[in-house]
Amino acid sequence: MSKILLGVGPTKINKDALREFRGDIELCRTDFSRNLVKNQVQKLNYFFGENRYSFAIPGSGSVGMEACLSNLLQSGDVIVVGVAGIFGWRIVEMAKRLGVQVLVVEADLGKGVQLEKIIELLRHYKVKLVCLVHLETSVGVLQNLDSGFSNFLKERGTLLLLDVVASYGGIELELDKWGVDIAYASTQKCLSAPSGLALISYNDNARREIEKNAQKVNWCYDFSNIYRHISEGVYPYTTPLFLLNVLDSILNYIMKFGKETYINKQRHSGTRVKEIFESIGLKMLPESIWEAPQVKVFYTPPELDSYKIINVLEEYGIEISPGIGKLKHSIIRLGTMGTAANTNELEYLDEIVHAKIKALL
Amino acid sequence: MSKILLGVGPTKINKDALREFRGDIELCRTDFSRNLVKNQVQKLNYFFGENRYSFAIPGSGSVGMEACLSNLLQSGDVIVVGVAGIFGWRIVEMAKRLGVQVLVVEADLGKGVQLEKIIELLRHYKVKLVCLVHLETSVGVLQNLDSGFSNFLKERGTLLLLDVVASYGGIELELDKWGVDIAYASTQKCLSAPSGLALISYNDNARREIEKNAQKVNWCYDFSNIYRHISEGVYPYTTPLFLLNVLDSILNYIMKFGKETYINKQRHSGTRVKEIFESIGLKMLPESIWEAPQVKVFYTPPELDSYKIINVLEEYGIEISPGIGKLKHSIIRLGTMGTAANTNELEYLDEIVHAKIKALL
Repeated sequence: MSKILLGVGPTKINKDALREFRGDIELCRTDFSRNLVKNQVQKLNYFFGENRYSFAIPGSGSVGMEACLSNLLQSGDVIVVGVAGIFGWRIVEMAKRLGVQVLVVEADLGKGVQLEKIIELLRHYKVKLVCLVHLETSVGVLQNLDSGFSNFLKERGTLLLLDVVASYGGIELELDKWGVDIAYASTQKCLSAPSGLALISYNDNARREIEKNAQKVNWCYDFSNIYRHISEGVYPYTTPLFLLNVLDSILNYIMKFGKETYINKQRHSGTRVKEIFESIGLKMLPESIWEAPQVKVFYTPPELDSYKIINVLEEYGIEISPGIGKLKHSIIRLGTMGTAANTNELEYLDEIVHAKIKALL
Repeated sequence: MSKILLGVGPTKINKDALREFRGDIELCRTDFSRNLVKNQVQKLNYFFGENRYSFAIPGSGSVGMEACLSNLLQSGDVIVVGVAGIFGWRIVEMAKRLGVQVLVVEADLGKGVQLEKIIELLRHYKVKLVCLVHLETSVGVLQNLDSGFSNFLKERGTLLLLDVVASYGGIELELDKWGVDIAYASTQKCLSAPSGLALISYNDNARREIEKNAQKVNWCYDFSNIYRHISEGVYPYTTPLFLLNVLDSILNYIMKFGKETYINKQRHSGTRVKEIFESIGLKMLPESIWEAPQVKVFYTPPELDSYKIINVLEEYGIEISPGIGKLKHSIIRLGTMGTAANTNELEYLDEIVHAKIKALL
């Protein structure tokens, strides 16, 4: 039996979406390829929202993170990063390497970042950019956002960056309503495509800043140059055609059923995972108002190393994720992203949890 | 009939090598994946040469180019770039964005860079790095290298970077003999793997410089951090497992037959392409001593727009490459890299050339 992946990503590649994918697509200079490259903007906007500049670049979500920061920031700029887990800290690390002054607003464990604290900082500093992670997979926390916050930022000319690596395709994004000027996502989580592309999306506010940095930012990261080429159906470097084709097939598949169906399936499956583990007495790490729909994180009892649970599930062919850093041995993390939202597999999980995990507690 | 790709890359994916590839490889935390990630170093060294630090990073050859420059250089450094075509100019562009002083040694059209001219510059400047492109696909020129040159660089503590994007897997590389401290390659040319990975390789001299820059270079490009993680079987960001698996299958396939066989096939096919076009009177662009074995570039007669030839071949299902920039309408470029080294397809090319192209001249 092939392994069941219920970790927090990557997910299993969506083979249903690839049934008609030939994999030997003809490369370069064909109308087919040019249209594929041009049309990605509109297709990616199915989740990003209308009227945005959106495209894929070779790399992972982290490449998207660093490329967005590089396109907006210059040495000496002041930014605020809201940190609720390790991906927030990664933004801090990358921004520091760019010579930027970073102000950190850290959330309590299991909570999202309090937007009022960011607003407070913005009253005292001239801040160019605020960075938040929408779904912190390290703790299962979903950051809330509201239009009051975004209006405050807009009034001060501060841009908002949102990491949607783990939420793109899994949660309804309302980037315009939330005032998100720039966002980046990945392909290997809720889309269940192979890893290897970072998805970028920005609005006109971000575009103006990006254009100021054009020619200064790293050549491979230069969004102005990339977007201009993509509008003509090519990339400034080798077009990642194989991965773009797979991505296109998967987006077509999702659009056929509709994003509501696709997203609901992940949320319902997340609810089922929660039921399963709560029914044997495990407590969730995030407070319920911060809980992500398709990533569920549980404490293991103080005397039980989380790897005991992980290893037993592994014996039965189920892979879940351990904690990271200080939480390595005290939490377990499960995802129902993309193809992992599979009812049959969750009923099998339920059986194993009751038959084998309960006995460990 | 499926299209015949005889451009200068990307090439058609090697399906023979993928016959046993399942494409649904189980991700994360498995011994299989960890070993795959660790073992890539040794497998990539099948072409890079022994005792080097070698690994793949997400991206294209251009990402490899920029990542190598970023890891070695700091603002204010002086470098020499030998330019024989557009990829040399791309190095210049990227290096300038890093705040580096760039001295250019430009070759005459159709020739490689004269190493004596670089040596002359090195007598007058304290140069940190010399950059050369091994196979300039824009003009079909193969750069020669020799141990006299590399010894001169070594004595002065100047590092040598070589772009092997178009030669990795297609020409026997002798990086140690040539004194190449750092090199980068791609997967979509002579290896006939999907695009999406840059292959990096460096020796201990380069490693020392790279370690000085660790923590300062962009996070995603930080070779010290990447190599340390790869030694443990993971990446610091999402491991590009799908592409690594495809690459592994293709390297295994090549190793089974031996690189001599694989390289010879490309060279012989290149010779055949040369015969075909010379037999109808076309002249090669590069001087014969600079001619690349698996990339052949021809002038079209002054009165004949190169696109006339390209379009007729296209009608018969054969794709070749046009010139770039000033040469756009006056040259044609053909590659016999990787899977493009196909005898049957070349005999078909020969037929079409004699039946249809000859009549245009």
